[in-house]
Amino acid sequence: MKKKILFTALFVGLTMSAAAQNEKVLPAPRKSATMTLMDALTQRRSVREFEETEITDQQLSDLLWAACGVNRPEEGKLTVPSAMNAQDITVYVCRKDGAWKYDAKTNSLKKVADKDIRSMTNGRRPAATMPPVVLVLTGDKQKFARIDRDFCDMDGGYVSQNICLTCTAMGLATVPRAGMDRDAIKKALNLAEKEEVILNHPVGYEKKK
Amino acid sequence: MKKKILFTALFVGLTMSAAAQNEKVLPAPRKSATMTLMDALTQRRSVREFEETEITDQQLSDLLWAACGVNRPEEGKLTVPSAMNAQDITVYVCRKDGAWKYDAKTNSLKKVADKDIRSMTNGRRPAATMPPVVLVLTGDKQKFARIDRDFCDMDGGYVSQNICLTCTAMGLATVPRAGMDRDAIKKALNLAEKEEVILNHPVGYEKKK
Repeated sequence: MKKKILFTALFVGLTMSAAAQNEKVLPAPRKSATMTLMDALTQRRSVREFEETEITDQQLSDLLWAACGVNRPEEGKLTVPSAMNAQDITVYVCRKDGAWKYDAKTNSLKKVADKDIRSMTNGRRPAATMPPVVLVLTGDKQKFARIDRDFCDMDGGYVSQNICLTCTAMGLATVPRAGMDRDAIKKALNLAEKEEVILNHPVGYEKKK
Repeated sequence: MKKKILFTALFVGLTMSAAAQNEKVLPAPRKSATMTLMDALTQRRSVREFEETEITDQQLSDLLWAACGVNRPEEGKLTVPSAMNAQDITVYVCRKDGAWKYDAKTNSLKKVADKDIRSMTNGRRPAATMPPVVLVLTGDKQKFARIDRDFCDMDGGYVSQNICLTCTAMGLATVPRAGMDRDAIKKALNLAEKEEVILNHPVGYEKKK
């Protein structure tokens, strides 16, 4: 009987540890960047060369919240509008340690791939150094199955502009990129058939000249 | 001879007056809203009912600059990125006094229609009162003629999010709307064949309850 309890405890422990490795609750977004919106608009620009310096989990949390996080928890509504409130855009965080799906409602990351897929996001203008993070935005076309068009591109634009402005306000650098190996990324992220890769954002510190 | 000079002067005067009516240089954007980007993201929400109160030319200038104005005059670059730097989005200002095309480079409005076309922008959810301004965003598909897709929807999303955030920071209300009478608007604004209506933003003060 003791043995059985011990095995059970061990099994539960191992399962929890595996879950911990595959799920990561982010620190609560601090929203502490003090730059005004007007200054962020004035200073926004595209940066294509990055330092390899990592960004912190706190910076990542702030950035993901700004991108498409929940700004009205009582209603489950987001920092971005979306057509028919479809909330069709998902952000994936691609790093050296794999690819993670951002869950805005729980402010957490769920691992979807162990592989580093950042090089798939480069397109024709690869940066000389790899940025520490690449955010991949996907759109769920299934959410617009009942109407005659989909708004994934448009809704992706909203999220992308939040990323551009927030990087500016946080002293980080980014650029939206539409050229990339979409099929390879779709496969690597294990996307559903109707979920399409819209664009991606390398994120890091601007490379010093 | 005197008569001829008088007639010429009169003619030039009338022409200049007509030009003045059809072109309006906006006051320089003041970018004076002090709200932080993080607060604008926290407070952003869609508002669908408006007071009829007019907004000032200064507010309009600030808002249009934020939407897709020039933030790096030496390079002619904008507050929004666009795919392949196509700068494919144009903003039209629709008011009681007609419809005006915003020229970001000269910070001016050019009249394109004498008619008040705001009611064409309502779609299925008309507001009980008419907002003083409706911004119509159009995308020039011709700019992507050489590639196999167009990015007008995506690039419209960038501009639209700037409008959402800036209205929040300026104490104004708005909502992006995709449902509207596109054909009628296209005709009224005298758009080129490849220029498509993407979405619109009623703008004004939120209706007091």
